Amino acid sequence: MGKLICAGLGPGDPDLMSVKAHRAVTSSKHIAFFRKKNRHGMARRIVDGLLREDAVEYAMEYPVTTEIPLSDPGYNASLAPFYDDWAARLLKLSQDEPGEDIVVLCEGDPFFYGSFMHLYTRLRDKMEIDVIPAITGMSGCWTQTGEPITWGDDVMTVLMGTLSEDDLAQRISDSDAIVVMKTGQNIPKIRKALQRAGKYEDAWIVKRGTMPDQEMSKLSELDCDENPYFAIILVHGQGRRP
Amino acid sequence: MGKLICAGLGPGDPDLMSVKAHRAVTSSKHIAFFRKKNRHGMARRIVDGLLREDAVEYAMEYPVTTEIPLSDPGYNASLAPFYDDWAARLLKLSQDEPGEDIVVLCEGDPFFYGSFMHLYTRLRDKMEIDVIPAITGMSGCWTQTGEPITWGDDVMTVLMGTLSEDDLAQRISDSDAIVVMKTGQNIPKIRKALQRAGKYEDAWIVKRGTMPDQEMSKLSELDCDENPYFAIILVHGQGRRP
Ligand SMILES: C[S@@+](CC[C@H](N)C(=O)[O-])C[C@H]1O[C@@H](n2cnc3c(N)ncnc32)[C@H](O)[C@@H]1O
Ligand SMILES: C[S@@+](CC[C@H](N)C(=O)[O-])C[C@H]1O[C@@H](n2cnc3c(N)ncnc32)[C@H](O)[C@@H]1O
Repeated sequence: MGKLICAGLGPGDPDLMSVKAHRAVTSSKHIAFFRKKNRHGMARRIVDGLLREDAVEYAMEYPVTTEIPLSDPGYNASLAPFYDDWAARLLKLSQDEPGEDIVVLCEGDPFFYGSFMHLYTRLRDKMEIDVIPAITGMSGCWTQTGEPITWGDDVMTVLMGTLSEDDLAQRISDSDAIVVMKTGQNIPKIRKALQRAGKYEDAWIVKRGTMPDQEMSKLSELDCDENPYFAIILVHGQGRRP
Repeated sequence: MGKLICAGLGPGDPDLMSVKAHRAVTSSKHIAFFRKKNRHGMARRIVDGLLREDAVEYAMEYPVTTEIPLSDPGYNASLAPFYDDWAARLLKLSQDEPGEDIVVLCEGDPFFYGSFMHLYTRLRDKMEIDVIPAITGMSGCWTQTGEPITWGDDVMTVLMGTLSEDDLAQRISDSDAIVVMKTGQNIPKIRKALQRAGKYEDAWIVKRGTMPDQEMSKLSELDCDENPYFAIILVHGQGRRP
């Protein structure tokens, strides 16, 4: 029986894929990836031009993404059968095509807030799974700012923009270096939390870091709260340095 | 004039190097790296067998590492001239060999607590520098545990084992997912902090993650407090999942 390989692809620039992920992507016949309905899908876009000519592609289209709020019980209720279904399909595919690996593409590092984890928990006891770690979106983004993110004993906190303003403000003021992901529609709330913590002027926003259409600025210089899904807010640590 | 390229090498397995870092490492003539006196150096070890036959190597040997406590003012005082000196030497080298790139090897991601940052701040206004992000040690380590590190809205905090026990305990109890780096001689203190935060039984330790001599266990099952430099303690988040 072939393996299920989750290939972490890194932040977007295909050159930042690992040698191991590159090998899996270019040599495997079966290639699956998540995407929103009717969209190209970011993970798929990263491997444009790299797949085998005879590759068979499996677009796993989310039934919901931003239409239902995360806090709504309907969110998980609608996603669980989706993951169940794709787990069963990939398992069946690997039984039907013994000896062939199946590669699931994953933007960033798979075990760091990645959707693949939901297939992983469903399949780990049923088949061999190889997860290839990758450069996280945040590493790609802070490197693009041209400023190191952490020094010496700096404490770094990774926060989701979906948290409450109070929670964000408290945690931002308690940390040296800050990464806020899932910024989406949460930019106004994150701005206020940064202001309350006295760190608003230090914050950067990086949209589509390392991708061809990357944009980057101080958050305070960004007029518009419209925001792509792939956007990260960063505050760099200022710790001890010789 | 050639560029200074900092090639982030990732956590240890050479296959986890990015395609871009691999290209820089295998094609460049001048290769510099940090190491402790009389040691092989981890970054150099990762690229064993990959360098050009005519590569010229520059071992940048730390004058102090663990002999002086980090909190001692003598620590920075002795490191500053070391970084000044190597910054000057690399700048001169690139002036003497126009057109040749100089590659500085860096374990993990260079801008995430990396030593290269100290050369970077000294040289960024004097020459062109290209920093290649990489898979962090922590990503390599959590992938090896076979458990995702963060789910849903989990808050992840990265801590240095050099912090005080009180600070560690407080921050560990306030976070969902925890990464403790620079564990070195700090294992007894980190154990106590995890116990106070009620998370001791959940903690893992990964030594030399993704390297050939990797070791891994629950921290509570580790008898000995002796510890290599490359060791990370992890507590996995348990957030929302469909
Ligand atoms: C569900 S998380 C997945 C994270 C991914 N597994 C990783 O390792 O970065 C998606 C969030 O990651 C952030 N992100 C990932 N890659 C990014 C990039 N290249 N540029 C900006 N933000 C990115 C965005 O904040 C986005 O909302
Ligand atoms: C000065 S920091 C450098 C971090 C590096 N730039 C990175 O991105 O991971 C060194 C610490 O990283 C951690 N570390 C890095 N790589 C590791 C690995 N492969 N296994 C275990 N720990 C690692 C250890 O805790 C070590 O004390």
